[in-house]
Amino acid sequence: MGLLEQTVKQIVPVDKKNDSLIQKRLDNLTKPQGSLGRLEELAKQYVLITGKNQPSVKNKTVVVMAGDHGVTAAGVSAFPQEVTPQMVLNFLRGGAGINVLSRHAGAKVIVVDIGVASDIQAEGLISRKVAYGTADMSKQAAMTRDEAIKAIEVGIDVVLKESSQGLDLLATGEMGIGNTTPSSAITAVITGRPVSEVTGRGTGITEEARSHKVEVIEQAIKLNRPDAQDALDVLSKVGGLEIAGLAGVILAGAALRIPVVIDGFISGAAALIAAQLQPAVKDYLIAAHRSVEKGHTAILNHLGLSPLLDLNLRLGEGTGAVLAMSLVEAGVKVLTEMASFDEAAVSRSME
Amino acid sequence: MGLLEQTVKQIVPVDKKNDSLIQKRLDNLTKPQGSLGRLEELAKQYVLITGKNQPSVKNKTVVVMAGDHGVTAAGVSAFPQEVTPQMVLNFLRGGAGINVLSRHAGAKVIVVDIGVASDIQAEGLISRKVAYGTADMSKQAAMTRDEAIKAIEVGIDVVLKESSQGLDLLATGEMGIGNTTPSSAITAVITGRPVSEVTGRGTGITEEARSHKVEVIEQAIKLNRPDAQDALDVLSKVGGLEIAGLAGVILAGAALRIPVVIDGFISGAAALIAAQLQPAVKDYLIAAHRSVEKGHTAILNHLGLSPLLDLNLRLGEGTGAVLAMSLVEAGVKVLTEMASFDEAAVSRSME
Repeated sequence: MGLLEQTVKQIVPVDKKNDSLIQKRLDNLTKPQGSLGRLEELAKQYVLITGKNQPSVKNKTVVVMAGDHGVTAAGVSAFPQEVTPQMVLNFLRGGAGINVLSRHAGAKVIVVDIGVASDIQAEGLISRKVAYGTADMSKQAAMTRDEAIKAIEVGIDVVLKESSQGLDLLATGEMGIGNTTPSSAITAVITGRPVSEVTGRGTGITEEARSHKVEVIEQAIKLNRPDAQDALDVLSKVGGLEIAGLAGVILAGAALRIPVVIDGFISGAAALIAAQLQPAVKDYLIAAHRSVEKGHTAILNHLGLSPLLDLNLRLGEGTGAVLAMSLVEAGVKVLTEMASFDEAAVSRSME
Repeated sequence: MGLLEQTVKQIVPVDKKNDSLIQKRLDNLTKPQGSLGRLEELAKQYVLITGKNQPSVKNKTVVVMAGDHGVTAAGVSAFPQEVTPQMVLNFLRGGAGINVLSRHAGAKVIVVDIGVASDIQAEGLISRKVAYGTADMSKQAAMTRDEAIKAIEVGIDVVLKESSQGLDLLATGEMGIGNTTPSSAITAVITGRPVSEVTGRGTGITEEARSHKVEVIEQAIKLNRPDAQDALDVLSKVGGLEIAGLAGVILAGAALRIPVVIDGFISGAAALIAAQLQPAVKDYLIAAHRSVEKGHTAILNHLGLSPLLDLNLRLGEGTGAVLAMSLVEAGVKVLTEMASFDEAAVSRSME
């Protein structure tokens, strides 16, 4: 049995039998019941997932998967493909948005070259290249089924290695010029929504360029005929290597009972693939934010997730996810650090 | 000239002439233009308010004002009045929600007894009691006009003292059993909305008790006839001492060019008073979150503020505000720590 199959089998739905016990603990804290809203929900979800009654969210890691896309040849992005390796180097030097926000949140950034189209050698980079970018999906399948599996397994393997040093919270991030295009394709196929409804302006293309992007995606779907019921078919035909890698990160998190904070649109497409492979992963996911990117709401609805933040973000890289990690940590601290009514000698509600 | 008058005169609208210069700096950073959404707006607002080009948000302080309300005798709250001093002690011991979340955000908590109905002596408490609670506003004015001014000046003075040690970001918080009642009254009078539309369930009263609360507030307004154009009249007749103190905190922040993060409903009522005294304060405000409390949206609309978070919070104390402080700090770090396209040798957008 391969690593992917093994990981999928390991994932079980989160056991909610202690839900009311945790609720009781939250209701004993010195605040009106439920008054810390979603922070309380996060605390409960965290304890249910991990099974830890006195958790501490110390080791937070965002895995940033980088890959290129043959479909950029069709003119779908505002930025040239050379930006992918340039930004990978920026990540490794600590100058990108994800670095700044991860330092702020106390999270570690792991950068993986899973499919950049050029060779990158740099200290700190995890080199696990499956291919030099995908093929142009508007002309052929983006990758083979074997490559898709291999890329998912890279994601799983990276998390397994990272978790061996202790890992309390995972987040997904990515870099790949053109990667909103395969993400829209995956979203359209899996959620069944029309392509134009789930295709946005990515890093900032014009409305005219967006129409072209819709046509390219429609062409790719028409040509490749991905089977919506078969996530590996969808992923290999109209996906991306970093998206596959992130699907692996998500599956590994769920298998290890580590909550996974999902960033925006591209990470969301990876979550669609992971949830199609194993519906029980949904219990382990926390949606960081509502992206500006048009198709993101369809993803959130399909996965039944309600995002924590709505800050008009559309950078990706994991930037929304690390901001949300801080809220998860805050929720857990509410549960573990607040005084109870008895401890603080505070009178209870009269109603 | 008294401290209040002097402070109001010191406040000037934020000079926006450098807006495009700061925008240019943001657009030079290694990300698609505008892709960090509200974080970029926060960075811009911070620089415009403070006039600091390379700011660092180090000293963050939340001022928690505590006061009691005579109107609790009319049965408007789910908790007994003794909870106000009990919670003040909880704040000073570090066991309350505001303590946990402030530690998480790296913010300092200052607790001020501005009007608790009983004597509290405890280390760390700033004792600036103006009165032993307000009078029952459904039977008479909550306080005299002089008391209202005195309480506002306590807020100003506390901030002036705190800022002498260096203060980069302020937030408002409060404790006072029954204080959603004067907050709803202030909101109804100043925004002109019907009482029932801006009166919610506070710490968790029943729907039946809420109807009673609406009647009590209507009675207080009918009896006292506060003049919506005269903020001090509104504050003294249907306000609260901690609300007055927070209005002072807000005015002092604006006068000192320190951005002020406004927590939820009660802090919002204080902001209504401050903005009525000096409309230019609005430029200095950052709305932390959208409270569950019914009347909060009317406040946000009246002040033209869009909240950063929507996490179903309704605890008060400043809990939403300290979470939002962390976002302000993140925004400023984006501006000051991210690499530019030139520094990182990253290619720019082709469009």
